[in-house]
Amino acid sequence: MTVNDVILDLERKTRIGMPEAIFCAGKTVQQISRAIAQATDADSSILLTHLDESKAAAISTTPFDYDPISQTAIAGPWTQPVGAPEIAIVGAGTSDMPVISEASRTLAFHGLASEQFVDVGVSGLWRLLKIRDQLADFPVIIAVAGMEGALFSVLGGLVPGLIVAVPTSRGYGICRNGETALHSALASCAQGMVAVNIDNGYGAACAAIRSLGK
Amino acid sequence: MTVNDVILDLERKTRIGMPEAIFCAGKTVQQISRAIAQATDADSSILLTHLDESKAAAISTTPFDYDPISQTAIAGPWTQPVGAPEIAIVGAGTSDMPVISEASRTLAFHGLASEQFVDVGVSGLWRLLKIRDQLADFPVIIAVAGMEGALFSVLGGLVPGLIVAVPTSRGYGICRNGETALHSALASCAQGMVAVNIDNGYGAACAAIRSLGK
Amino acid sequence: MTVNDVILDLERKTRIGMPEAIFCAGKTVQQISRAIAQATDADSSILLTHLDESKAAAISTTPFDYDPISQTAIAGPWTQPVGAPEIAIVGAGTSDMPVISEASRTLAFHGLASEQFVDVGVSGLWRLLKIRDQLADFPVIIAVAGMEGALFSVLGGLVPGLIVAVPTSRGYGICRNGETALHSALASCAQGMVAVNIDNGYGAACAAIRSLGK
Amino acid sequence: MTVNDVILDLERKTRIGMPEAIFCAGKTVQQISRAIAQATDADSSILLTHLDESKAAAISTTPFDYDPISQTAIAGPWTQPVGAPEIAIVGAGTSDMPVISEASRTLAFHGLASEQFVDVGVSGLWRLLKIRDQLADFPVIIAVAGMEGALFSVLGGLVPGLIVAVPTSRGYGICRNGETALHSALASCAQGMVAVNIDNGYGAACAAIRSLGK
Amino acid sequence: MTVNDVILDLERKTRIGMPEAIFCAGKTVQQISRAIAQATDADSSILLTHLDESKAAAISTTPFDYDPISQTAIAGPWTQPVGAPEIAIVGAGTSDMPVISEASRTLAFHGLASEQFVDVGVSGLWRLLKIRDQLADFPVIIAVAGMEGALFSVLGGLVPGLIVAVPTSRGYGICRNGETALHSALASCAQGMVAVNIDNGYGAACAAIRSLGK
Amino acid sequence: MTVNDVILDLERKTRIGMPEAIFCAGKTVQQISRAIAQATDADSSILLTHLDESKAAAISTTPFDYDPISQTAIAGPWTQPVGAPEIAIVGAGTSDMPVISEASRTLAFHGLASEQFVDVGVSGLWRLLKIRDQLADFPVIIAVAGMEGALFSVLGGLVPGLIVAVPTSRGYGICRNGETALHSALASCAQGMVAVNIDNGYGAACAAIRSLGK
Amino acid sequence: MTVNDVILDLERKTRIGMPEAIFCAGKTVQQISRAIAQATDADSSILLTHLDESKAAAISTTPFDYDPISQTAIAGPWTQPVGAPEIAIVGAGTSDMPVISEASRTLAFHGLASEQFVDVGVSGLWRLLKIRDQLADFPVIIAVAGMEGALFSVLGGLVPGLIVAVPTSRGYGICRNGETALHSALASCAQGMVAVNIDNGYGAACAAIRSLGK
Amino acid sequence: MTVNDVILDLERKTRIGMPEAIFCAGKTVQQISRAIAQATDADSSILLTHLDESKAAAISTTPFDYDPISQTAIAGPWTQPVGAPEIAIVGAGTSDMPVISEASRTLAFHGLASEQFVDVGVSGLWRLLKIRDQLADFPVIIAVAGMEGALFSVLGGLVPGLIVAVPTSRGYGICRNGETALHSALASCAQGMVAVNIDNGYGAACAAIRSLGK
Repeated sequence: MTVNDVILDLERKTRIGMPEAIFCAGKTVQQISRAIAQATDADSSILLTHLDESKAAAISTTPFDYDPISQTAIAGPWTQPVGAPEIAIVGAGTSDMPVISEASRTLAFHGLASEQFVDVGVSGLWRLLKIRDQLADFPVIIAVAGMEGALFSVLGGLVPGLIVAVPTSRGYGICRNGETALHSALASCAQGMVAVNIDNGYGAACAAIRSLGK
Repeated sequence: MTVNDVILDLERKTRIGMPEAIFCAGKTVQQISRAIAQATDADSSILLTHLDESKAAAISTTPFDYDPISQTAIAGPWTQPVGAPEIAIVGAGTSDMPVISEASRTLAFHGLASEQFVDVGVSGLWRLLKIRDQLADFPVIIAVAGMEGALFSVLGGLVPGLIVAVPTSRGYGICRNGETALHSALASCAQGMVAVNIDNGYGAACAAIRSLGK
Repeated sequence: MTVNDVILDLERKTRIGMPEAIFCAGKTVQQISRAIAQATDADSSILLTHLDESKAAAISTTPFDYDPISQTAIAGPWTQPVGAPEIAIVGAGTSDMPVISEASRTLAFHGLASEQFVDVGVSGLWRLLKIRDQLADFPVIIAVAGMEGALFSVLGGLVPGLIVAVPTSRGYGICRNGETALHSALASCAQGMVAVNIDNGYGAACAAIRSLGK
Repeated sequence: MTVNDVILDLERKTRIGMPEAIFCAGKTVQQISRAIAQATDADSSILLTHLDESKAAAISTTPFDYDPISQTAIAGPWTQPVGAPEIAIVGAGTSDMPVISEASRTLAFHGLASEQFVDVGVSGLWRLLKIRDQLADFPVIIAVAGMEGALFSVLGGLVPGLIVAVPTSRGYGICRNGETALHSALASCAQGMVAVNIDNGYGAACAAIRSLGK
Repeated sequence: MTVNDVILDLERKTRIGMPEAIFCAGKTVQQISRAIAQATDADSSILLTHLDESKAAAISTTPFDYDPISQTAIAGPWTQPVGAPEIAIVGAGTSDMPVISEASRTLAFHGLASEQFVDVGVSGLWRLLKIRDQLADFPVIIAVAGMEGALFSVLGGLVPGLIVAVPTSRGYGICRNGETALHSALASCAQGMVAVNIDNGYGAACAAIRSLGK
Repeated sequence: MTVNDVILDLERKTRIGMPEAIFCAGKTVQQISRAIAQATDADSSILLTHLDESKAAAISTTPFDYDPISQTAIAGPWTQPVGAPEIAIVGAGTSDMPVISEASRTLAFHGLASEQFVDVGVSGLWRLLKIRDQLADFPVIIAVAGMEGALFSVLGGLVPGLIVAVPTSRGYGICRNGETALHSALASCAQGMVAVNIDNGYGAACAAIRSLGK
Repeated sequence: MTVNDVILDLERKTRIGMPEAIFCAGKTVQQISRAIAQATDADSSILLTHLDESKAAAISTTPFDYDPISQTAIAGPWTQPVGAPEIAIVGAGTSDMPVISEASRTLAFHGLASEQFVDVGVSGLWRLLKIRDQLADFPVIIAVAGMEGALFSVLGGLVPGLIVAVPTSRGYGICRNGETALHSALASCAQGMVAVNIDNGYGAACAAIRSLGK
Repeated sequence: MTVNDVILDLERKTRIGMPEAIFCAGKTVQQISRAIAQATDADSSILLTHLDESKAAAISTTPFDYDPISQTAIAGPWTQPVGAPEIAIVGAGTSDMPVISEASRTLAFHGLASEQFVDVGVSGLWRLLKIRDQLADFPVIIAVAGMEGALFSVLGGLVPGLIVAVPTSRGYGICRNGETALHSALASCAQGMVAVNIDNGYGAACAAIRSLGK
């Protein structure tokens, strides 16, 4: 067998409960289109991430639901989940919206509703304390923060659910494109915090899905 | 109020479902003993981590169950959990035993039984494939690996449960005391992987507890 | 002029309001003793920092007040300051006591009383909120924290005084001997936070003195 | 409460003596405009930082005072402070003007006059020595330097005021976008130096305000 | 002798069995053209790497075979090798095609046929296991992967040939432009793995040629 | 299957042509002894690496051939290979002997004779030029160097064989425990150079075995 | 004295033997022009570095000699030095020409003739050996190399003059924009090598001038 | 030729004007002794560096002049140079004495007298200004400083001689074992500064010898 093109891992859903998504950065429109075609041939809709607007415009599949804020698309039919949200997404600042949206869209694609709590960074602590009881009811919280990421530890000391920290590249200088926030999440004094890669809203959503056993 | 000594956060269990533990590195025997006393006064047993043998020997509390491999102790009465294990701990090599044990002891202290699968690194892939079906039944897997941490990604593509990656400081040179394994976990091509700090078996166990809602 | 030995900068107090201290790491007992002698000859007492116990024991000056926790000594006569404390020292954990003590001793040597608030890390947020109003009255707060240093940002959003963050080398793995806490302080979302070098309790105390114009 | 948009921390001035500012990098014009609206609704003028010219042009609030050098704006009415300057801003080179201006504008917005001393880097030491006595009278000096940041330590040995070091990203190669200057400030042999993040003129100004208790 | 221009190392083929190639990044079209001319004068065809499209368009030599995917060109006559492939190139994802192509073109220029196996990353392990026996027959395998580079170790435990790992800059955040994949290759638990620089498909091909003694 | 102890990968020789070795750092004497027992039960001799003298002394297997310089041992019967050396090991300095010996012993255990050329660093270039013709006859050269690792590139331009660079942790300061030499090997201007982890003489030997198809 | 603009250090030539130059990166055309005016007023010509073409075009001074390769200009009258070259500039590759030219132009501005030896990297060692005797006659050699910088050490072992290593940002991946070459220079096994910042041809030329006492 | 032991580069003095020295770290007493023997056989005295006291005590050569502060020895007859010093060694603090002494001893071994100016760090700037005129007369100055290394830049703006910066590992935290001082030297705003490796007093002395053409 010579393997010289996209091979979609169509059995992934059977193995791990979630289908493969297409990470579009560094892929050509042709490669992306062939991956979509493999999914379509298998009667599956598929999620695309890191898809910039110019590539999105060049893809001819329908239906094709592109969201420029999160740089995600869904190729094929799908519907927004309804019902009570099972996952909270907490964001330190409004600059974190692209990552928050990537997480939210990923959850929605997998059929999970989520609720967003944005701009609740610790420099105005009352904002977080005000929603503390609401957050305490969620089994999983995706926490999104850049800069120094202090939000992660404060949240970790307040609520019992699984907290998946998503450091973002927001900030400048010693923020080091998100490494400072990442290190804060990993070095947290609050027990049981976990982290995903910088800006990886998609991964955090998948972790939430794994945790909920959905 | 002047605060000049240990203040145990006794309400933590109520807030987040788990009691505080004592991180003993950098603390004197006197400080550790006063913390234990506060727990005892509140009728709580307490977990101690990063406790070396010489300090352990100097603590006079009873009962006091010290384990030199994991460098943990439990001050106060406790019993090993019984029943079917709810969490799997998968370790790449036998050198990772101290971290594996820290995770296992932490789970046990919180009343959760776990099962260990050790020395199943990817250079002998059959070892992991042989236990794949067993692992697929666990809702949470703690994966422990040093060196390049390839175990994390392979596992992530095989099973549906939440995988909490614990990179270990095993290895030399470019392993950078665990940073290479940590980066591998965070950059994993397997979706939904999460990571804790290097050698943080305690934190991984706490994340598992959060995920299970126990 | 050939200069081949210690030259104490005796005019420093005139220029910047504080005398020189002797940083003892890497100096021989002979070099330290000659520096003390220069101070004594000028009728000044002098502070010594980073002085380990074996070197301290080898110094024959009197009076000589050595404190093993902070690794500091004062050579020559001095008295503890009395009166209301002008500076608060807030510490995240009891492991930070060596740094807290270095700051406290440095302030005391310069005639400034301070008050300590220890073990008030953010994973048990109530501890900090309980002392918030007390802290709000201090013009300068020295904040000492290791691990992820989330204490700095939370404090920065709560009180108006100058906050001098001292990251400590407490923690392991990705804590990187204090760099993670340092980066957190510098990348803080709380406006007007300033930082000194890792474990530099002495420097934080000197900054407080500069800020108070004492 | 679902929180899905900007929440201005309007109580911040009461808590810490300074109002919140809007960090505009990564925010959309819509998000920025809504934040301004919240301030306007509360009868407050507000400072905007990291605001590039194209976004500034798209904001329709009046009055709106934009300064392209410092990339700052003030939305709402304000007046330049008059009277003797209370803070000195010392800059090593003319390339540091954007950061110097950010500090100066931030101080002015908060009602504090400052005086600038620019292009006084240590390679021509006479420039700094000439203004030494003037500088010695300021209770707070904001020192701005890129490259190797030697200015910080020299200044620290000459004057008694609080020195807030702002490393800048000026330079190339091993300057590492300001990290070398930052490390120099933190490792300074001059006692009591404090530092803020790279290029953070805003933060240095806020630290000065905290120090002066204004 | 004054040396102020390109000096092609025309004797290299005699010394090490391979001719010099021209690394075009940072060279002007004039410099590249003069290098080609020196090769032509010596009756040699020559390989060019890191040649972007605009420079390629400005070079007037014929024949000139430019490939935009790999950013390589061959100046002078050459023919594609025929016969059974002696080297396998295994790629984790389709985004790695530029590096895979650089390796493949380099081998072809030196007269060696290769076979590609692309999109066989470990998150869908069956893809790699399916081709395991084919791969086991190759004396040399060039393995190309970005992100966490787990492919390297898995492959290393499955087949006996020399595995030359080429980490790629694919990924974001903690992938650090390929350093995480590079470190994974170097820290591999699979014995006898070797690595070349990030994105260095050319170097991997040359290593394969050295290993085969061609 | 519960897996809670050493599992030797006894089928490795069949899969990749070389048996597993035991990396002893971080393993207890008991763990090492059980691994040896598994090999003995399978009638195999086994190589041990990173084995310090105190652990070696505590192992009771016979025959057991321990070499303190390379920190390696061979448990079980074996004989030194005879015949012409197939691999050259070139070392920049005599401080590199532990790594050189680890490579040499590993080759010998696998039945391959090697020849050593030590203390031929480039600061005395004649030493290397003198042996150039000898080295040119070897299909594989293991090059061992610390400090700046210039030996790798010089060698790479002189001989046609596969050069496996082993950076060593020799040196101080900016040598960074071998990272500078490692980076030099990877960034080499000599085409087709490959590298293994710092101080990894074992890995280089295994790479040589893979390359020779032995 | 309020200092709010360029202050040229006109006395520098008297103090250190060389006039100040203008580092133009990050300066506006207005700032650069005012600096030139100060030099002109003092009857001095002045060197400008890091001056890109668009800024150069906007400067109206005459005479003004701009060189786009080195990104340098000389404002005011000057003449090329004549006579035998006193300094050799040795470059590993033609991509290093911008840095080589910056060094050469700086020397020329200060009245020193230099001779260039370009494209003599160590992968074709004969090129360097061929000019060894010529190079041995120079009291100072400026060595310019990117990638792994092996040229520095080889040269250091061959000739007696002062070797000023200028690492360049040429290369990709692990070259880290010149840090690998810089580290190689600093960790060199050849005694008495010195280094300047990455791409700092100007600084190397100034060091040569200092060394020659010109 | 098989090369399996120390090969002293006895021709080095002829090539580069200085003999080889023995870097003793990582070498056994036997290896060091054989190197000394090769020098003795060639009627040369030889310098040893990085030689700790226990190894020094085990060497039986006579005469053998060991200095514990600089960790250097001279094997064979030699005499201290007399006459006016040609090189100044300027040290920021007394903790830098080991490095200062290594430089001084290296110069003396090569027949060059030097003069030391110690404890003249910039926090007490008057100490340096007082000796400025003396320093201005030296053609070469070796500057030794740890911490932030501000001494280098200040000196560079004051005197015309070649300044060879030797960063030292003195300091803690963000000093990073000398990297901060090294980066300061390389990023210096003072033109023509050059640097050697951290703590490399030997290298600085050799650079001085090269510069003086001795």
